[in-house]
Amino acid sequence: MSGDLGPRVAVSAALKFTAMFADVDVLLVGDEQQLLALASKKIPAKKLSQNRITIIHAADVITMDEDPLVALRHKQNSSMWCAIDAVKNNRADACVSAGNTGALLAISKYLLKTFPGIERPAICKAMPTEAHTAYLLDLGANIHCSAEQLHQFALMGSVLASSPAMKPRVGLLNIGKEDTKGTDVIQAAQTLLRNDERLHYSGFVEANDIFSSDVDVIVCDGFHGNIALKSIEGTARFIAKKIQRGFTKNWFNKFLGFIMLPLLNQWRTELDPSMYNGASFLGLQKTVVKSHGNANKKAFLQALMVAREQIIQNVPARIQQQFSSI
Amino acid sequence: MSGDLGPRVAVSAALKFTAMFADVDVLLVGDEQQLLALASKKIPAKKLSQNRITIIHAADVITMDEDPLVALRHKQNSSMWCAIDAVKNNRADACVSAGNTGALLAISKYLLKTFPGIERPAICKAMPTEAHTAYLLDLGANIHCSAEQLHQFALMGSVLASSPAMKPRVGLLNIGKEDTKGTDVIQAAQTLLRNDERLHYSGFVEANDIFSSDVDVIVCDGFHGNIALKSIEGTARFIAKKIQRGFTKNWFNKFLGFIMLPLLNQWRTELDPSMYNGASFLGLQKTVVKSHGNANKKAFLQALMVAREQIIQNVPARIQQQFSSI
Repeated sequence: MSGDLGPRVAVSAALKFTAMFADVDVLLVGDEQQLLALASKKIPAKKLSQNRITIIHAADVITMDEDPLVALRHKQNSSMWCAIDAVKNNRADACVSAGNTGALLAISKYLLKTFPGIERPAICKAMPTEAHTAYLLDLGANIHCSAEQLHQFALMGSVLASSPAMKPRVGLLNIGKEDTKGTDVIQAAQTLLRNDERLHYSGFVEANDIFSSDVDVIVCDGFHGNIALKSIEGTARFIAKKIQRGFTKNWFNKFLGFIMLPLLNQWRTELDPSMYNGASFLGLQKTVVKSHGNANKKAFLQALMVAREQIIQNVPARIQQQFSSI
Repeated sequence: MSGDLGPRVAVSAALKFTAMFADVDVLLVGDEQQLLALASKKIPAKKLSQNRITIIHAADVITMDEDPLVALRHKQNSSMWCAIDAVKNNRADACVSAGNTGALLAISKYLLKTFPGIERPAICKAMPTEAHTAYLLDLGANIHCSAEQLHQFALMGSVLASSPAMKPRVGLLNIGKEDTKGTDVIQAAQTLLRNDERLHYSGFVEANDIFSSDVDVIVCDGFHGNIALKSIEGTARFIAKKIQRGFTKNWFNKFLGFIMLPLLNQWRTELDPSMYNGASFLGLQKTVVKSHGNANKKAFLQALMVAREQIIQNVPARIQQQFSSI
C-alpha cells in the first residue's frame, strides 16, 4: 500500500508475476477496495482466484516516514504487518514490500525472528560486476556492527552466493588492502573470517573492488554499505544524465542518438538499476525482500523474482544449517 | 620519486606546468641524477634554471607500502621529507606528491603543523556535480572522527569552496535525511554545524546527493569519505569499460564508435578522473596536495594546478582566520 508510488506498481507487477511463473500464488495485502479496483483493470474480479491472486484486507498503512518503533507498536492492522504475519502463519512463503525499510525490518524481526546465532538481519543486494553478480551486505539495517555480526553477515552472504559448483569468495570492505588498515572492529572481523573453515575468505577489499569480480560477497557494516550503494547509484544516474544530455544538444547528436539506440538500449538493460532491485533481509527464519521505494513495475517484478529464487533455493533453511554447523 | 609510476610523470608534468604558468617556479626533489636525466630529455640541463626549474637532491625514497610512522622516524633524507621541509623553510609555497598518502600526511603534520583549533588535517577533493564542483572531506586521513573534528572539517571545507559571491552550503554525510538518522557522532556534529553562524549548514545529505548540486561542501569521517570516493571511481570505471566494450563488438558498432568520437571525447573530458586529481590536506599551516598514486601527466598537472590555486587563494591563511574568528 505504501512505497513512493502506492499499490499501483505492486499490483501490476504481481499480475505479471503470476502470469510469468505458474509455480507462484500471490496474496495482495492492503485496502481491499483499492486493490480490487487496481487488479480488476487487468483481470476480471471473479477470475482473480483462477489466476492465483488473492486479496487480503488490511485497514491501515505504514507511511514512508513513520518511525519504525511506533509502527511496530501501533500498526498491527497495517498491510505490512498483515503481509509479514501471513508469512509467519505459513499462508505465504515470502513477503515483498516497497514500503518503509525500518518498519519492514522491525516487524519482520519481531514476527519472523532470526535464527539462533544471528543477532540481527542484514540487508543484502546483488551488484553488477565485470563478470557476474556480487552480493553486498549489510546495506543499512545495522549502523554499528560488532566483529561477530560482520562474521555472521559473511556466513549468510556465502549461502546466498553459493552454488553447487563454487564456494563464494568473501571480501571485507575496508579503506585499504594492507593488513594493518581499518578499525579495530574490522581487524577483529578479519581474524574471525580467516579462521572460519566454512568461508572462502579473500581478505580486505576497497569500495572500487565491488565491480572487480574478485569476490562474490562483500561484507561491511550498514553505514558503510549504505554509503557505497548510494554512491554507486548516484554515479550511475549522473553519468546516464550526461550521456542522455549529450544526445539532445543539436540535430547531429540527436541523429547519433537515433542510430545508437540499439547500443544505448543494451547499456540501459545492463546497467538498469531496476534489474538489481530486491534486497534480501538475510538471517530471518523466512524470506522478506525489500523493493526500492520508487521501483517501477519492471523493478518490482525483479524484487518478486528475487523472493521466488530464495524460496526455490531454500535460502533461510540453508542459512540455519550454516549456523548450526559450528 | 615514488607513486606507482616513479618520477617520470611528476617531472614531465612539472615542465609543462612551468611552461603554462609564468608565475610558478618548480623544485624537483629527489635523486639528482635521475631527475636531471628525465628533465633534460625535454630541456637542456643548463637551461633548467632559466625555465624556473631547480633540482634538490634527496638520497632516500619512501615506498608506497612503507609504514607512515616508520617513514616519519627514519626517512629524514627522503624526497618526500625534503620536499615538505622546503615548504617549512619557505623555499617553496606548496608540496605536491603522488607518493605514500599516510607518510605524506604524517610528515606534513609533523613539519608544517596544523593551525590552533585544528586537531588533524583532512583530505579534501573536488567532485563533479550537475552544475559545479562540490568538495568532499575527509577522504581517509581520519578513520575515527569526533563531532568536533567534523565541525572543523566543515569550517575548512567552507573556506576552500567559498568565493566572494557566495557562502558555501555545507551538508553532513549520513544514511538518511531525517533528523533522527545516523550515529551519535553525526547527531552531535549536526548540532555543532547548525549553531555555527560562520557556516551555511544545509542538513544531512546521502551519498547520492554528492552529485546533486544542492551542497558545495560534504563533510564526513575519513572512512565514509574513502568508501564514497572509491565507489564513485569504481562505478565510473565500470561504466566506461562497458561503453568502450560496446563499441568494439562488431563492425557496425566500431563504425558507431568512430562517428561518436567527438561526443565520446567530450564525455571523457567531463568525466575524466584526472580532471579531478589533486587532494588538499586542509588544516596544515602550508599547502600540501596529494596526487593519485597512478596519476598520468595530465592528472599530475591538475594536482599542480590545485596547489597553485590554493596559494593564489591564500587558503591556509584564510583557514587560520576562520578558526581565530570564534
